Amino acid sequence: MVNVQSIPSPAIHAEERAHEADHPSSLVARFGADQPLKLDCGIDLAPFQIAYQTYGTLDAARANAVLICHALTGDQHVANVHPVTGKPGWWETMVGPGRPIDTDRYFVICPNVLGACMGTSGPSSTNPATGKPWGLDFPVTTVRDMVRAQAMLLDHLGIDQLFAVAGGSLGGMQVLQWTASYPQRVFAALPIATSTRHSAQNIAFHEVGRQAVMADPEWRGGRYLLEGANPRRGLAVARMGAHITYLSDAALHRKFGRKFQDRSNPTFSFDADFEVESYLRHQGSSFVERFDANSYLYLTRAMDYFDLAADYDGVLARAFRNTPTRFCVISFTSDWLFPTSASRAIVHALNAAGARVSFAEITTDKGHDAFLLDEPELLAIVRGFLDAAGKARGLNGGR
Amino acid sequence: MVNVQSIPSPAIHAEERAHEADHPSSLVARFGADQPLKLDCGIDLAPFQIAYQTYGTLDAARANAVLICHALTGDQHVANVHPVTGKPGWWETMVGPGRPIDTDRYFVICPNVLGACMGTSGPSSTNPATGKPWGLDFPVTTVRDMVRAQAMLLDHLGIDQLFAVAGGSLGGMQVLQWTASYPQRVFAALPIATSTRHSAQNIAFHEVGRQAVMADPEWRGGRYLLEGANPRRGLAVARMGAHITYLSDAALHRKFGRKFQDRSNPTFSFDADFEVESYLRHQGSSFVERFDANSYLYLTRAMDYFDLAADYDGVLARAFRNTPTRFCVISFTSDWLFPTSASRAIVHALNAAGARVSFAEITTDKGHDAFLLDEPELLAIVRGFLDAAGKARGLNGGR
Repeated sequence: MVNVQSIPSPAIHAEERAHEADHPSSLVARFGADQPLKLDCGIDLAPFQIAYQTYGTLDAARANAVLICHALTGDQHVANVHPVTGKPGWWETMVGPGRPIDTDRYFVICPNVLGACMGTSGPSSTNPATGKPWGLDFPVTTVRDMVRAQAMLLDHLGIDQLFAVAGGSLGGMQVLQWTASYPQRVFAALPIATSTRHSAQNIAFHEVGRQAVMADPEWRGGRYLLEGANPRRGLAVARMGAHITYLSDAALHRKFGRKFQDRSNPTFSFDADFEVESYLRHQGSSFVERFDANSYLYLTRAMDYFDLAADYDGVLARAFRNTPTRFCVISFTSDWLFPTSASRAIVHALNAAGARVSFAEITTDKGHDAFLLDEPELLAIVRGFLDAAGKARGLNGGR
Repeated sequence: MVNVQSIPSPAIHAEERAHEADHPSSLVARFGADQPLKLDCGIDLAPFQIAYQTYGTLDAARANAVLICHALTGDQHVANVHPVTGKPGWWETMVGPGRPIDTDRYFVICPNVLGACMGTSGPSSTNPATGKPWGLDFPVTTVRDMVRAQAMLLDHLGIDQLFAVAGGSLGGMQVLQWTASYPQRVFAALPIATSTRHSAQNIAFHEVGRQAVMADPEWRGGRYLLEGANPRRGLAVARMGAHITYLSDAALHRKFGRKFQDRSNPTFSFDADFEVESYLRHQGSSFVERFDANSYLYLTRAMDYFDLAADYDGVLARAFRNTPTRFCVISFTSDWLFPTSASRAIVHALNAAGARVSFAEITTDKGHDAFLLDEPELLAIVRGFLDAAGKARGLNGGR
């Protein structure tokens, strides 16, 4: 009998996570029935809530706010220990005292996006009409909906204009949507490793992930929270597949090559013989500890739907017409999910719109995930761009 | 409630396929207890059988045999209607009367590989010791095992030397193994869109596919055939993910772009909104009609294990030392699974070994699958190479 070793059952933090969906370890802005969020699908969502973290202090002129938009599987815990996993914040190399997005100078806000699972309304939060988790009754939301909700959060906080908005991947899509929807509210924008629309290949990869989730009988037609189930294995498979797309062939080769796991020879089995297999299984099983399967469906769908030019008769430059915002567009040479060509398309449209834009393609073998990593060139570029923008904005920059 | 549409349940040809596993619609070579297949894992497999198709006529000198090695999900039905699906053979553009591998001139043999599910012994065939399907009791096999079995088939057919051996992807791995294991038996070799070893990224993609199969509760720890189950959804997810890697971003963009399926707008649901989603779901559901889930595990594993240089102290050129074979190595510009760099590595090793080798990189946006498609340049190159090799071999080429 051939040995079989499949994805290990993780020590699930299911209870903590379920609690976070309604009662996050964060600040929460609650919007009542009188403040509906008007969604692209035509539904008015009310009441709803946004969970968010802040770092630093808003200055007297309310001019130093920086909005961080998180990626598909990120959350508001940018620069603090994560309440479920106990791990450091996901962008601590970038955000903090003395960091490029310097919390001694800027007031940093990061909201959990609409549809996610860490305290902003989404499929795992409680539907106020039923007192039960929304599940698939939660409306399908878009990047524009996420940004519209964030604008309501800024109104709630009394912030008219952001000094900057920054984010990578889905976060970068939100940055671009911010500059298109609310150009007067964004002084400077940093869309990183992103695109104005998802390619057919990216939609395809997302669809495989969704099908992996929905193929798991524990998904229960999306009603798993109601039925005490958890489509853990399906979500782990989805994460494993997606994770490959966040790296690069070169990075995988450098990290793992064809090295065997704890052995020098093949086991002639379906064990994790190769280190890369074991690594991927770990990625899958740790992800399901902290993420909700339905949120994965909703957020991948929002990315697939994103097509900024489509809202402007197919002419991307029109999305940025007369924009007052200054842009810094960043891509990575080995990112094949959001390749440099996608960033160049943004730059071309900004040029056509007469916008202020600088562009950097950073040489690295780390793939799409480079935006999350300790990449010195990335950190230096963000720091330099914000310093210059801060001078232009008249921020005093003192402590 | 959001609409959900997941992979449709196909009209499964389960009975036909199960029948093919032991009683193929093909020629069959049976090897008894006295003719064991010595496997790399140390096991002697006996009895076992090889299902194969032939086309054309063996000449009097027994010198015009061409062996076709099929890829991961291929089979022996190269140039005839498939007995399960009713579709044309998988390489009819390449093999047939007047085709580049001309069945009016050559005697073409294509065996189903060891571990597959169309009549050669594998996990879905009957274990003679129990009278039940092997399942995971079938030994884990390698590319070298596949080739060793094929050599026994040639002995059985009384063919000492192949005029040529050709194949793409896993088929190309077999071609390379043939030239290393039995150099005197191969006059000419055509490894196409292949590599001497699987990259970490390719192992990673395979592992995701295997985990998708094993995550399906219908897989039943590999005992689904015994228990009347079928891990259809897991295998479909595996196929969907793999299928993306067989194409290219450019081809997906050209074929599908961001076109909506039967609608001009998003449905705000998890239906197959985009054409590419619908296409992938179809690929997944049609695949499970004709393929066995455990065979998918075994054959992907064999590809992962393949590392030709490792058998020669890590020096690839030694695999080809003093080779009498003439080689034609072919790659495709948009193949990111087996990129041109992998073919160049083969060519460099052949050069270092002083072998006769020609190399062609074909410009196409069709990705890895290009080797299966009607690519005029591919067809012309194969025809030209075989014509020249046929003259060198003294084949009369008449009809």
